[in-house]
Amino acid sequence: MEQSFLAYLRGRTRHLPQVDVGIGDDAAVIQTDGNSIIACTDQIIEGVDFDLNECELADVGYKAMAINLSDIAAMGAAPQSALVTLALPRENATRIAGEVYEGILEAAEPFGVAIAGGDLSTYEGPLSISITILGKVDSGKPWLRSGAREGDVVLASGSFGGSIRGRHLRPTPRVELATQVRRLADVHAAIDVSDGLSLDLDRMCAKSGVGIELDTDAIPIHPDAIALADETGRTAFQHAWSDGEDFELLLAVSPDDADRLRTETLAAPLTAIGKIVGRTGLWQKQDGKYVRLSPQGYMH
Amino acid sequence: MEQSFLAYLRGRTRHLPQVDVGIGDDAAVIQTDGNSIIACTDQIIEGVDFDLNECELADVGYKAMAINLSDIAAMGAAPQSALVTLALPRENATRIAGEVYEGILEAAEPFGVAIAGGDLSTYEGPLSISITILGKVDSGKPWLRSGAREGDVVLASGSFGGSIRGRHLRPTPRVELATQVRRLADVHAAIDVSDGLSLDLDRMCAKSGVGIELDTDAIPIHPDAIALADETGRTAFQHAWSDGEDFELLLAVSPDDADRLRTETLAAPLTAIGKIVGRTGLWQKQDGKYVRLSPQGYMH
Repeated sequence: MEQSFLAYLRGRTRHLPQVDVGIGDDAAVIQTDGNSIIACTDQIIEGVDFDLNECELADVGYKAMAINLSDIAAMGAAPQSALVTLALPRENATRIAGEVYEGILEAAEPFGVAIAGGDLSTYEGPLSISITILGKVDSGKPWLRSGAREGDVVLASGSFGGSIRGRHLRPTPRVELATQVRRLADVHAAIDVSDGLSLDLDRMCAKSGVGIELDTDAIPIHPDAIALADETGRTAFQHAWSDGEDFELLLAVSPDDADRLRTETLAAPLTAIGKIVGRTGLWQKQDGKYVRLSPQGYMH
Repeated sequence: MEQSFLAYLRGRTRHLPQVDVGIGDDAAVIQTDGNSIIACTDQIIEGVDFDLNECELADVGYKAMAINLSDIAAMGAAPQSALVTLALPRENATRIAGEVYEGILEAAEPFGVAIAGGDLSTYEGPLSISITILGKVDSGKPWLRSGAREGDVVLASGSFGGSIRGRHLRPTPRVELATQVRRLADVHAAIDVSDGLSLDLDRMCAKSGVGIELDTDAIPIHPDAIALADETGRTAFQHAWSDGEDFELLLAVSPDDADRLRTETLAAPLTAIGKIVGRTGLWQKQDGKYVRLSPQGYMH
């Protein structure tokens, strides 16, 4: 329901001057006395986003914080503080809260993110963790999904596919990378890959009103995608294309900036996976013809 | 579990310079480039905080926003923007979300609060609404629970008791009053009454390291408390003392400021209900002797 409801909501809510970027990007951009506050919020719920038979409570806490940090990184911002809201099953609520918090703090501490507050409830329901992170951009504007331009190169951090084999619980949010890239390049558009490389790439292109000519052979495949392909009978590429929860960044930059970034030693490797074109959609050149590719991934 | 867990959490989390006031006040105070951001978050959950047999979905949305606005008002801050997170029962999720949002927007619009973003999930569980509000103080410091001084007068807005008869769903957050008071007086400490007049008064005194000599006859009793007393066999005063969910403000100010405020026409009436004393606790003078009163209310 999420996409259609968000469309309704955008129509229903007034645009107010204190919000530069509202519903529909990785995070909101809020103006306060001339400063931009970057704010994002994501919840994860037992039975929907995780299964406690397959992971530890600390993993879940870590993930809840890390996915929000990833959204902040996708705005080119530095995270500062977090508000943590837990809805806890009544049975063993205190033990559960403590273990979840250990994971939350583990994910927050490397980036100096302070837990500023939050809320706790116990109820008859599954464990739910909702985190709001506030961050800032040192100078310049936050990165949006909407600024990619024809001729830009799209860079992808890290590699893709098979995150379900465990990486999805302990992603490395690309906060450090975002800070480094911000100093070195003028990023025109950015998104983090949560729902699937192709789906999130398509979202960035759609928001920018452009398309991409992909170099599909260049897309970095994670070893987990190869291992998973052995089990599923799908190809490693298909896993990289659609699995999601990689929490890598996709960045649209000028060709010059792309060249510069690829010569630097960064917190994660960057690979050029395509170039932005005027026609909307995801495209691949095969035998001199353009073939349109379908985005795939997790639709909310 | 909440109070004891928060004590653990305060010990477990590092104090970081960007957070002036963290866990334990009505809202957090976050520093960013020299500006204070006031941030608070509260969730309400079906079966714990409301019963859909007794209210409409729009009421619940209104309440979720209003209780957060009340926390912002208790900091002497002006609300600016909100992030709204819903966990929705799968059945009729879109309809439920739409009706809840109508109430959220109804509560937000009088104060020009923008919905900057949020998250939506559907799951097998009760309706849960978690709202984070960001606000600011125009000048000076936010009001904390901890600044009440011996000799201060404690003012209460509005009147107390019996909110369960309906007011608890549609409280008027004292945002406008807080803005007015801020311009007229130097508020030493403040809290909003969510869990019970006496309980929240006791919390403010405890945080300030002081006590209060109450003029219990002066405590403004709401007509709902009188009507409820007829049904329950308790006194109207007992309802005012302990019911909670009045979402009124308690303010500690100097006697001079108290006098000045009581001559002004404000968004809600202010009544002096006692004076701050050095000895901790809630006290009443009876026949020349001090009698200690027990705080009562809703303990999380």
